[in-house]
Amino acid sequence: MKHDVVDARVSPEGRLRVLSKAEIHKLLDHSAGGLYPVFRNSALAVLNSGSFLDDGKELLERYPDFDIKIVQEQRGIQLQLTGAPAIAFVDGEMIRGIREHLFAVLRDILFVSNDLMENPSFDLETTEGLTDAVFHILRNAGLLLPRIEPNLVVCWGGHSISREEYDYSKQVGYQIGLRGFNICTGCGPGAMKGPMKGATIAHAKQRIKTGRYIGISEPGIIAAESPNPIVNELVVCPDIEKRLEAFVRVGHVVVVFPGGVGTAEEILYLLGILLHPDNADVPFPLIFTGPASAAAYFEQIDAFIGTTLGEAARRRYTIILDDPAAVAQRIAHDMQTVSAFRKQSKDAYYFNWALKVPHDLQRPFRPTHEAMRQLDLHLDQDKHKLAANLRRAFSGVVAGNVKADTIQAVQDHGPFDIHGDEAVLKPLDALLQAFVRQNRMKLPGKAYVPCYRVVV
Amino acid sequence: MKHDVVDARVSPEGRLRVLSKAEIHKLLDHSAGGLYPVFRNSALAVLNSGSFLDDGKELLERYPDFDIKIVQEQRGIQLQLTGAPAIAFVDGEMIRGIREHLFAVLRDILFVSNDLMENPSFDLETTEGLTDAVFHILRNAGLLLPRIEPNLVVCWGGHSISREEYDYSKQVGYQIGLRGFNICTGCGPGAMKGPMKGATIAHAKQRIKTGRYIGISEPGIIAAESPNPIVNELVVCPDIEKRLEAFVRVGHVVVVFPGGVGTAEEILYLLGILLHPDNADVPFPLIFTGPASAAAYFEQIDAFIGTTLGEAARRRYTIILDDPAAVAQRIAHDMQTVSAFRKQSKDAYYFNWALKVPHDLQRPFRPTHEAMRQLDLHLDQDKHKLAANLRRAFSGVVAGNVKADTIQAVQDHGPFDIHGDEAVLKPLDALLQAFVRQNRMKLPGKAYVPCYRVVV
Amino acid sequence: MKHDVVDARVSPEGRLRVLSKAEIHKLLDHSAGGLYPVFRNSALAVLNSGSFLDDGKELLERYPDFDIKIVQEQRGIQLQLTGAPAIAFVDGEMIRGIREHLFAVLRDILFVSNDLMENPSFDLETTEGLTDAVFHILRNAGLLLPRIEPNLVVCWGGHSISREEYDYSKQVGYQIGLRGFNICTGCGPGAMKGPMKGATIAHAKQRIKTGRYIGISEPGIIAAESPNPIVNELVVCPDIEKRLEAFVRVGHVVVVFPGGVGTAEEILYLLGILLHPDNADVPFPLIFTGPASAAAYFEQIDAFIGTTLGEAARRRYTIILDDPAAVAQRIAHDMQTVSAFRKQSKDAYYFNWALKVPHDLQRPFRPTHEAMRQLDLHLDQDKHKLAANLRRAFSGVVAGNVKADTIQAVQDHGPFDIHGDEAVLKPLDALLQAFVRQNRMKLPGKAYVPCYRVVV
Amino acid sequence: MKHDVVDARVSPEGRLRVLSKAEIHKLLDHSAGGLYPVFRNSALAVLNSGSFLDDGKELLERYPDFDIKIVQEQRGIQLQLTGAPAIAFVDGEMIRGIREHLFAVLRDILFVSNDLMENPSFDLETTEGLTDAVFHILRNAGLLLPRIEPNLVVCWGGHSISREEYDYSKQVGYQIGLRGFNICTGCGPGAMKGPMKGATIAHAKQRIKTGRYIGISEPGIIAAESPNPIVNELVVCPDIEKRLEAFVRVGHVVVVFPGGVGTAEEILYLLGILLHPDNADVPFPLIFTGPASAAAYFEQIDAFIGTTLGEAARRRYTIILDDPAAVAQRIAHDMQTVSAFRKQSKDAYYFNWALKVPHDLQRPFRPTHEAMRQLDLHLDQDKHKLAANLRRAFSGVVAGNVKADTIQAVQDHGPFDIHGDEAVLKPLDALLQAFVRQNRMKLPGKAYVPCYRVVV
Repeated sequence: MKHDVVDARVSPEGRLRVLSKAEIHKLLDHSAGGLYPVFRNSALAVLNSGSFLDDGKELLERYPDFDIKIVQEQRGIQLQLTGAPAIAFVDGEMIRGIREHLFAVLRDILFVSNDLMENPSFDLETTEGLTDAVFHILRNAGLLLPRIEPNLVVCWGGHSISREEYDYSKQVGYQIGLRGFNICTGCGPGAMKGPMKGATIAHAKQRIKTGRYIGISEPGIIAAESPNPIVNELVVCPDIEKRLEAFVRVGHVVVVFPGGVGTAEEILYLLGILLHPDNADVPFPLIFTGPASAAAYFEQIDAFIGTTLGEAARRRYTIILDDPAAVAQRIAHDMQTVSAFRKQSKDAYYFNWALKVPHDLQRPFRPTHEAMRQLDLHLDQDKHKLAANLRRAFSGVVAGNVKADTIQAVQDHGPFDIHGDEAVLKPLDALLQAFVRQNRMKLPGKAYVPCYRVVV
Repeated sequence: MKHDVVDARVSPEGRLRVLSKAEIHKLLDHSAGGLYPVFRNSALAVLNSGSFLDDGKELLERYPDFDIKIVQEQRGIQLQLTGAPAIAFVDGEMIRGIREHLFAVLRDILFVSNDLMENPSFDLETTEGLTDAVFHILRNAGLLLPRIEPNLVVCWGGHSISREEYDYSKQVGYQIGLRGFNICTGCGPGAMKGPMKGATIAHAKQRIKTGRYIGISEPGIIAAESPNPIVNELVVCPDIEKRLEAFVRVGHVVVVFPGGVGTAEEILYLLGILLHPDNADVPFPLIFTGPASAAAYFEQIDAFIGTTLGEAARRRYTIILDDPAAVAQRIAHDMQTVSAFRKQSKDAYYFNWALKVPHDLQRPFRPTHEAMRQLDLHLDQDKHKLAANLRRAFSGVVAGNVKADTIQAVQDHGPFDIHGDEAVLKPLDALLQAFVRQNRMKLPGKAYVPCYRVVV
Repeated sequence: MKHDVVDARVSPEGRLRVLSKAEIHKLLDHSAGGLYPVFRNSALAVLNSGSFLDDGKELLERYPDFDIKIVQEQRGIQLQLTGAPAIAFVDGEMIRGIREHLFAVLRDILFVSNDLMENPSFDLETTEGLTDAVFHILRNAGLLLPRIEPNLVVCWGGHSISREEYDYSKQVGYQIGLRGFNICTGCGPGAMKGPMKGATIAHAKQRIKTGRYIGISEPGIIAAESPNPIVNELVVCPDIEKRLEAFVRVGHVVVVFPGGVGTAEEILYLLGILLHPDNADVPFPLIFTGPASAAAYFEQIDAFIGTTLGEAARRRYTIILDDPAAVAQRIAHDMQTVSAFRKQSKDAYYFNWALKVPHDLQRPFRPTHEAMRQLDLHLDQDKHKLAANLRRAFSGVVAGNVKADTIQAVQDHGPFDIHGDEAVLKPLDALLQAFVRQNRMKLPGKAYVPCYRVVV
Repeated sequence: MKHDVVDARVSPEGRLRVLSKAEIHKLLDHSAGGLYPVFRNSALAVLNSGSFLDDGKELLERYPDFDIKIVQEQRGIQLQLTGAPAIAFVDGEMIRGIREHLFAVLRDILFVSNDLMENPSFDLETTEGLTDAVFHILRNAGLLLPRIEPNLVVCWGGHSISREEYDYSKQVGYQIGLRGFNICTGCGPGAMKGPMKGATIAHAKQRIKTGRYIGISEPGIIAAESPNPIVNELVVCPDIEKRLEAFVRVGHVVVVFPGGVGTAEEILYLLGILLHPDNADVPFPLIFTGPASAAAYFEQIDAFIGTTLGEAARRRYTIILDDPAAVAQRIAHDMQTVSAFRKQSKDAYYFNWALKVPHDLQRPFRPTHEAMRQLDLHLDQDKHKLAANLRRAFSGVVAGNVKADTIQAVQDHGPFDIHGDEAVLKPLDALLQAFVRQNRMKLPGKAYVPCYRVVV
């Protein structure tokens, strides 16, 4: 199958608008250590927005001739694209939202490389240093706005969901938007897009012109979950752990829609934090919601959490079914709690410094076959540690499903083996199989070939 | 059935923000000649936005205790509402778009009364005077923006259409919005709402914060077709004829979606203008479009026009089926034609002075039983005159369907009789019956009782 | 002497941007009743901004070939100027502030003629009707902004003042601007320009980009006191009485700098209002200020008021000498008083409805020789009536000094005779002679020929 | 003498608005290597704006108790000031422009320390690395705006000039502002303030709300030349060499008003660049201007340049006396030349990459007694090298006049000795003595004690 391509030159949008000669040189460096490969691939992902494709490897193969150059002009820099997906253009003009994304990608890749990774001011071996790095990435992206009351709702959920679940997520977004709140998701289709569309319509009705539709991605996932152009603040974190930490540092309330392993990873990550004793008194509202038809799904999740992490974990969230207005009203209520806590503890509204993110949730987890085999999955450990380990298991499955290099590794060496206690593995296996049955592993239309094997 | 009501005090939004004591006095004048009745009823219609109800009389009966007062405060005026429809509020706060509409209604009612009707500067007996009045109403509402290239797409079509037709109108609006064009409709649900929603999403993707969603209504129709809150420029003309003239003076391209008698009235009105010899050389792009399933509908309209008004009329429009992008591309092309013509003829982009609107299309038509009976429907007259007369026939049926006072008149005296030549009446009757069959006369869920009788 | 002229075409700035064909026709009507003469002469006055010339008649004679036409273009209207003063241009481009003034003049002339004078909605024979007219002129000019705390300082004073007095007025304006207040004057040079320049610098330091520099003029005076281009809200009232009423309706505090007869007229006008029994409880802060060298001047004024209007009048103002910061602090304090009163009495911040302006201060006074001769100047009347009559006497002298037609009348028939009681005329004569001695009658460099004769 | 002080807490203005915990810690680090000392002293300098004092050491001694703390609040950070100069406040509120400066100082100190000096991405030993550092400082300060035509006029000149010269600089600024150009100076009073005031008034008349008043300073000079609050973009470079390079990289035209040794340093710096063979073809407009009374001053400068650097140097500038409009028209003309060159060479409008700044003009020069003694001042070297050495001589004298630590060194060890060839030293001595005679060495009112000795 042939995919339409376009050659074009585009001018920057958004904040990063001028580059030094040294920066341009770095971005165009095709060598192994150079920035070009990650820049090119992330740019391609952004341009593919709107196409239904959740396989990063396939994307790269579709547009083998795609190339991107930076051109210095008297009025600023421009990007020269060759072989770019035609879907990013309307009658030959690139959609402006996508144009912004392109330059957001460029901004973050440069910043991470130039100002962060190579800069000894950041000690990336410590918890404080890693949190500081997240802070700087978000600030550089313009995400941290002072003097604004808490209003950011993080929406998690699957990219591959049913039409009914998608419509429901739109309605929840609409009710959230009517109340003046903003949306933050991980980019991509499904539950990451629905709430933004709903909120866009609600913000129009409320004459809110400053609505924020924040997308937080990372180079490994962006190809599979390209930001839809409504996203008007895109930030690309260097890895999945910083991306997850970014969500919990900037979000004030988290809403979880039905999803698959990625969603499970996010839930476990958050519970791994909330179950840490240091966070016992930090309010962090968490709501699971979906249409009536998603009742079974949330029962499974709820049961899995109850079995593996216990009642304390279950007390950290609320499940609301089939009632978008009630979800939004609950959010409005919870925002007050968060505001009051931040005010009293003099913590910033725009960055949740008070939350302790344990170091083992910050350290990048590379899902090799070896690492997956050695996951420490048994009940006889602190609950927040078990949550962190379960998070890694789900993270590995996500990578095996959608990230180009992990897909390749699984193709080469067979599925991951996941070992552990039966008391953990049995519920885990049940949950994963339910995801497969419910088509939550991949976009519809393709049979799912598991990238893992649960070895009891 | 009981309808939820709310008491509230609201501050103004939008441009009219201060009132003189004399103006407040006029608006609160409950006497027969005072402005209170029309102000109250139009305000109620605006507050009912989003509810599915197309019967103005029923609306008034639902909220018998609704009352509205103007309160002078040191920071400006406020409106004190009693017994207002709860649907206009979110958690006790009125939706801001609706708040704007409330003050737009107030602005236009005052202006028409104070500065127009009582002002001898306007000679409302002449074509020039009537056009001047339309110009002043639109300018006062802030609609006439100079220095802007032609970009306004008027969308006509039914308020009672199928889900498929509605979704199609959204897609067309989306494609229009992606190309940076704005939308103008007659307010209300269905084909008047779909294009605005689509364009809202597209404008968000294109980062267009100045998107215009113009609604042009009039006091008789607004109860049945209340503006949805996306409308960010609402103007209430004093009668249907000025409303129609407003559409053709400010719009650059007209798109017609499937609809019923209201849509037919609009088409006939426009053809009545375009067939006038003075307009032979004025470009005025007109596109009929709908999903594939609407093919039969447009064939009927097309056939009716061909039979009654002839080939010259048919040459004035293009029919495009099931292709939203093609509609938008055609619009983009036609905008160029309009721009070129205005530039060459030094006519304003924001007001189509060049177009001749014949006096018999300007004069208010009150659809009494007598007036309906005397309609001059035969083939032996100038085509633009026949179009004008057919327009009146449809206008009467619209009023009998949705306007509170006309519904009452039909309840009191039975349906209108429509007389004329068989060569005209037969196709007319066929068309109206098709509308009934296709549920295009009223919102679904109610049996349609015709308000007319075709007497061949 | 030859004056440089320029031909140019300019596009509109500001709010009035589109005109109907009928309006253009009216503005170009050269007939006696047409608007062209007043439009042309006011436009010429505006273009002459910055030139030192306070003789309206001389201005018209300088630019006899000046002509102005309105041209309709597709992007809006434009003005075609012929023989315009070169002083309004920088390297061939008209200064943008002057461009705005040109269109403000056009807007107000049209509005007064079209919507006010010919509109029976306004009863210009009654106090309420006249106040309503002032309200509508100001609202149409965009001057009445709701939801803003009282912050407008009206500055009165002479256009012909010493360098020291001018610098002092700049310093007062600077201190006012530092505190975030806005300035309103009668346009022209001297004490009307100094405070605006000072406030402009202060607003820049305080990063206030919405600073208001309001100028209120009228066609008879504008030639002599053309608005300096800093004025960013210009309104041209139809006559001197509406102009004076505009000042007291929109201003929250009045500051009087040294001046001549025009300033005296303004002071008497205001005292005529404040001494009316109905206004006894209305707070209306009034401050006289100048450099140390102006002490004698204010002593004379103060004495004149004491002698003619008594102690009650003297209690209505405060004199502060040589202390700009103290003036501004006093203003800040008085603003609080005004705010509290408006709030408590529910009177608008943006329009002082509570103030009673007596009808004899509203009725236009035409200073013919006959009218001047019949002024009722004696102590045996209500103080507010005497103030009103004294106001007329000063008004006549102003007209005889600077207005083209009155200058002509005095040239034709000799100076005005002013009759009355010695107890009034003696102090009056003394004051006028002091003005002559202090060069306060005309711009320096010309000998003053009195246009009046005090006949004791 | 006692100086009024104020304690206050201020919220941030401008772009840098949120700080990480690590950043706050660094700024509050009082240790020798910590940022607190330079932050405190620069903050104090900024607060002293408007006071006439050009002795950095004296400033520090005036406010010995001044302290500044950073406080984290839920809405963002705040600064807690103790013992701050009262002059920065109006009725207890800090002037907003000064507030912005405070946070600009903080931003630049942090950036230079965190992201630049400690970051191995920048090689500060090479010409390219130093230019890159300047680029990053300016970009981080938001100074580099793409897509804007060349419009920045750098104004150099003395902080201690006569009233007549000051007024002249205002008039030049006014004429520059009328033509829509922006102003960049080194901060401080005199010729650095006049053009900004003039341009502010002109921009108000031209309705330019985006006027740029850029101040470029450095920690050593800022105490002596504190930015006046009109400056709306302040950047603090780490040293005098980067500050000078910043001027020539962002400015499009340079205008030099009368001044003293600082001005001479700037002229020599620029000639050191322009005489470099690599820059022979780079257009760089340079205008010397002043009132008629400054004719002798420019003759001296011109003669000194002619004698030491030759005719090629003299061809690089134009002298215009007593004609502000002519200066502005010349600037307008030169901007075209610069635009054309940048366009043709594809060099950025916002940063003059094409200009070669020789390494010996980039390397920080610390004016110790030893360094001053060893200056290489003779005619037998490349002209651009001689210019660079003369620049250093003047730089040393500036430091000895106004910088706290150098004043101390001169107090401790006596004046600098300046050695060299008579052919260079004689004209140099003559020039310096002329500066002393003309009161150009220090603000008036103090006798000047030379900090140098020319040893022929």
